Amino acid sequence: MTLAAGIAEFVVSTRDVPAEDLDVVARSVFDTVGAALAGATSPQGRIVGEHVRATAGPARCTVLGAGYRTDAASAAYANGTFAHSDDFDDMGGYGHPSAPLVPALLAVAEHLGTAASGRDLCVAHCLGFEVAAALCGGYDQYDRCFHSTPVFGVLGATCGVARLLGLSVEQTVAALAIAATEAAGLGRATGTMVKPLHAGQAARNAVVAGLLARQGATGSPAVFEARGGFLESFVGHRALDADALVARLGAPFRAARTLFVKRFPCCGSNHSAVSALLDLVRTHGIGADDVDEVVVHGMTETSPVLRYPSPADGCEAKFSIRYALAAVLVRGGLGVDDFRDERWADPPVVAAMEKVRGEVVSRWTTSGAHKRRGNPITVRLRDGRELTASVPRSDLVGGPKAPLPEDQLLGKFRDNARRSLPAESVAAAEKAWRAVESTPDVRTAIATVEGSGTWRRQAS
Amino acid sequence: MTLAAGIAEFVVSTRDVPAEDLDVVARSVFDTVGAALAGATSPQGRIVGEHVRATAGPARCTVLGAGYRTDAASAAYANGTFAHSDDFDDMGGYGHPSAPLVPALLAVAEHLGTAASGRDLCVAHCLGFEVAAALCGGYDQYDRCFHSTPVFGVLGATCGVARLLGLSVEQTVAALAIAATEAAGLGRATGTMVKPLHAGQAARNAVVAGLLARQGATGSPAVFEARGGFLESFVGHRALDADALVARLGAPFRAARTLFVKRFPCCGSNHSAVSALLDLVRTHGIGADDVDEVVVHGMTETSPVLRYPSPADGCEAKFSIRYALAAVLVRGGLGVDDFRDERWADPPVVAAMEKVRGEVVSRWTTSGAHKRRGNPITVRLRDGRELTASVPRSDLVGGPKAPLPEDQLLGKFRDNARRSLPAESVAAAEKAWRAVESTPDVRTAIATVEGSGTWRRQAS
Repeated sequence: MTLAAGIAEFVVSTRDVPAEDLDVVARSVFDTVGAALAGATSPQGRIVGEHVRATAGPARCTVLGAGYRTDAASAAYANGTFAHSDDFDDMGGYGHPSAPLVPALLAVAEHLGTAASGRDLCVAHCLGFEVAAALCGGYDQYDRCFHSTPVFGVLGATCGVARLLGLSVEQTVAALAIAATEAAGLGRATGTMVKPLHAGQAARNAVVAGLLARQGATGSPAVFEARGGFLESFVGHRALDADALVARLGAPFRAARTLFVKRFPCCGSNHSAVSALLDLVRTHGIGADDVDEVVVHGMTETSPVLRYPSPADGCEAKFSIRYALAAVLVRGGLGVDDFRDERWADPPVVAAMEKVRGEVVSRWTTSGAHKRRGNPITVRLRDGRELTASVPRSDLVGGPKAPLPEDQLLGKFRDNARRSLPAESVAAAEKAWRAVESTPDVRTAIATVEGSGTWRRQAS
Repeated sequence: MTLAAGIAEFVVSTRDVPAEDLDVVARSVFDTVGAALAGATSPQGRIVGEHVRATAGPARCTVLGAGYRTDAASAAYANGTFAHSDDFDDMGGYGHPSAPLVPALLAVAEHLGTAASGRDLCVAHCLGFEVAAALCGGYDQYDRCFHSTPVFGVLGATCGVARLLGLSVEQTVAALAIAATEAAGLGRATGTMVKPLHAGQAARNAVVAGLLARQGATGSPAVFEARGGFLESFVGHRALDADALVARLGAPFRAARTLFVKRFPCCGSNHSAVSALLDLVRTHGIGADDVDEVVVHGMTETSPVLRYPSPADGCEAKFSIRYALAAVLVRGGLGVDDFRDERWADPPVVAAMEKVRGEVVSRWTTSGAHKRRGNPITVRLRDGRELTASVPRSDLVGGPKAPLPEDQLLGKFRDNARRSLPAESVAAAEKAWRAVESTPDVRTAIATVEGSGTWRRQAS
């Protein structure tokens, strides 16, 4: 059996998914819809939303918050881009799992013409995530070239699409072969408008792959392990024990122990240090004026948040540990607005950035244990005191060990949703999506986030 | 100056393109339109055409031969897939140059809303081809993993789109950054329905990249040479002399000395041996019954036409030197129909395939000179005679040294076009497209190949 066939069998035939995994997935779906409603109003969200609107096909699938519908592939492209635009969407497994998955599944749920339940959606998400996370394995996107979110995400989304479309095993294999050949996304896109497009392209390509396979398109069943196949192309070799990988799918499921809802709308590599500094700021009531220096320990040399020590726009600011910490020092928090409207150029923040210094750990002088420790910080105050704080990655709020408290999860959704939904629609959207797992027809929930698009005509 | 900026400057600022290059490009445009009109009726052409029809956006851009219009990106996707479906489209530089380029340019010509002349189209093609061919350089797609047609083709098509849209240098850089991140296409797609999709995805992605850049999307100007950029991702290193590459663009132009119009609708690696055998068959009046054995010399071990010694469908048959030569022996020629309707399973041809043997040259025992020699053949006849023939690649009919004679070029177009156009439209299409270089408005020519789509309702 080829790897594609083993994966397809898993996607088509799995009956039971544990409730704990479905619950975690349902949170991610809820959170992703919120992230997309905010991302629609980002600079690149506006450009893509306008592009898709201008070329809209049949009014079948909703572009979130934008007040119009189009064909499934285009809706997936727009919503995927929106979901990843603020880097506020969930993490785990292969980078940003839900930004390609959820938009692809929403598009299919509306494309089907019959009711897909919220449970169907969550099961499809869970299976797709499982496959992509398994394939990604130990792939290190910062050591290699390609961004893992779209490269593995298009495969996960395709599995989810195949499940929701009810494809056969053979059709699912074909869909995987079609999707794998569009796997793409350069690491260099980090810190530019192009990175959010990665989730959009993966979502769109998954939808197209599923629909073409359903219409009879075929591809190579050996698309993963063959010469010139996915594994050789993206991992660099073909030495994979396919049977072992397939045997471990869903045994146990990875969602509940992997998915991570973000607290801050910026690269996840900021989160440990930002969490630590925020603790100190709140505990000790300190601000930028009290501080001489902030040292971030344990930065890996390939860390993406070292790339932009002096960010020139909001996209770069998301990958600047100096900006993230300076903003926390000056403003006492870090939200979507901190990466919009040139707030990265505020003189007090720019001044505070001069106080932030990263301490880089070389791969040749470490056992790798520092990765688990995250990024402890040391704050040297003007009054001579020295404060330290540390939040290991495994303890980060939003992760499996410490889920985002319900009030914060809801608050995050509301603040995201209000950016593109009329104020009076936010509560209904929150109610529908927080209960997505139990809705008999996902289209009912989607109707709450169609929006009117009036914000598009306001200043950006 | 970054490589992207140097390329963009060339694309935006070049004024003069030599007439000999434009003439060769005009032939390729003509030939590509014909190939697409045939490919629309192929199995995968039908599937993609139906998918695009079902999700069609505003009726602005023509899907060739299909009788409907849609948005620019979707039309480019369909037409690109059509153009590459029979592997009958042109070759040179980076695999199949015009299958992504021409559909992208046709879509933009109709999207613009103002008249683009045939000359504008040919200049845009010439510049796009120039850039992609330069970037591809010595990339060996059979030794590496990715199929060069979409990976480099999306960049060439993006340059052409940028030129036709009239983008600025900065916008062209942005378009390249967006397109580069979608560069994709697995080598393993060879011999499956997925390979033709590569041209479609490249054409679509080029159109979207150009339109998003025009609306203000931006990307990294260092997208080629940066860590995690295009060069490292696809070539494996970043050691490229960007200034030298840019300086050689258009000095001289590559089109006239590179583009190759195909005589046979199958992988170009068949062409040398097929040409040689066809010469013998016609000169000596021999057929399959007269032959004991056909030996093909100088096959490289990575040759794609060794992949399917016993093809199971038309897609595989295009990459089977055994099938191609057996079909020539039995039928005295090789046309589009030989790869349709299960003709690869005809018992006489299957029997003749047993007589064909390839002689593989290892890379460790050759100077590489055999590549220039092409694939000489030896035919051992039942009567004891031994015939030999050889057509070096550089002498192949259709290439720069021996352009396809005008009557064959026109005959090829007619046979392709009649497959999706009503019989009475073929002459007008031929007239309009053979003179594309001098048309003041490409839309006039496109109107001749819209077709009625009636063939779609007939048996496939």
